[in-house]
Amino acid sequence: MEALEAILTRRSTRKYSDVVPERELIEKVIEAGRYAPSGHNNQTTHFIVFTEKAVLSELANTVRDEFCKMDITEDMYISMKGSILAAKKGGYIFYYGAPVLIVVANKIGYGNAMADSACALENMMIAANALDLGSCWINQLHWLDENKVIRNLMYKHGLKEDETITGGLIIGYPADGVINRQMTERKGNPVTWD
Amino acid sequence: MEALEAILTRRSTRKYSDVVPERELIEKVIEAGRYAPSGHNNQTTHFIVFTEKAVLSELANTVRDEFCKMDITEDMYISMKGSILAAKKGGYIFYYGAPVLIVVANKIGYGNAMADSACALENMMIAANALDLGSCWINQLHWLDENKVIRNLMYKHGLKEDETITGGLIIGYPADGVINRQMTERKGNPVTWD
Repeated sequence: MEALEAILTRRSTRKYSDVVPERELIEKVIEAGRYAPSGHNNQTTHFIVFTEKAVLSELANTVRDEFCKMDITEDMYISMKGSILAAKKGGYIFYYGAPVLIVVANKIGYGNAMADSACALENMMIAANALDLGSCWINQLHWLDENKVIRNLMYKHGLKEDETITGGLIIGYPADGVINRQMTERKGNPVTWD
Repeated sequence: MEALEAILTRRSTRKYSDVVPERELIEKVIEAGRYAPSGHNNQTTHFIVFTEKAVLSELANTVRDEFCKMDITEDMYISMKGSILAAKKGGYIFYYGAPVLIVVANKIGYGNAMADSACALENMMIAANALDLGSCWINQLHWLDENKVIRNLMYKHGLKEDETITGGLIIGYPADGVINRQMTERKGNPVTWD
């Protein structure tokens, strides 16, 4: 797929087929992420890949339980409020049941941690679209980055003690077999010219 | 250009031709940025575009003067140290003399401000590569986001009082007419599988 088309037609996919994409495809998506630029060519974005259903389920249950312990506050980010409410309601799976979750982390105290990780995530979203995979940014583990239960579980799966969870991505085949590539008009994201 | 090729061959360009790319090309790059995802589909990334040489020069001189007033500290980010030292040495132009500078800003206090802006910047870098333009992330105005002199100058060019400068990008034709697309091996950016 042509680069501009892949960028402009990328949409978030939130319903997935159970089929785990071929390892080679997942690796291509991650390679795209690894080729993102980094501040001072730092290359400290860490990609932690989950494809095992039992591991994903444990992670989902733990995230749900931790959200259930939390109270909604006035100044809370709207999407985090939504996650807590959904967890308390029941049946909540933060990764939408996708077959692959790629958590990204970076060095604690590194000023470009979020910037570098977001570039990597965006590369992976575009690559996924070009490879006929759906994708969606998943932020819950970033919100829970300082939660000890979550960190302890993530340490078991490769997170380092000097790393902060900056974000995450799910990828997979869409549930209905067709990727939605309908471009949605941008009403915000204003442009000012000098 | 194919999407994966555009992602994998994107490199930073730091020497530019004086030629300002056609407005249509610049608009295509910005459109790619506007189509980046945003938290809760917030769409609050603001693109402030500079193409006027006199305006760019005033901005460069102001950034240089502000860096000259600053002292190096032990815990300072390495690239910021480099900018201060370069400014004090003389002849410093933070945007490398590129013909186009696109500053990105987002809402102050919005938790996804950096994430959304970085996705937009990455989209623009990939689009630029696909359109045969060089590009480079420019972080100096982000570092100086709380500097009053810089903010006052940026207000004149469209920055809103409730916005934080999250980053920037330069684009243009490379000085030698050829874009360097040599892939450089990633030695960092590790991957862990479950």
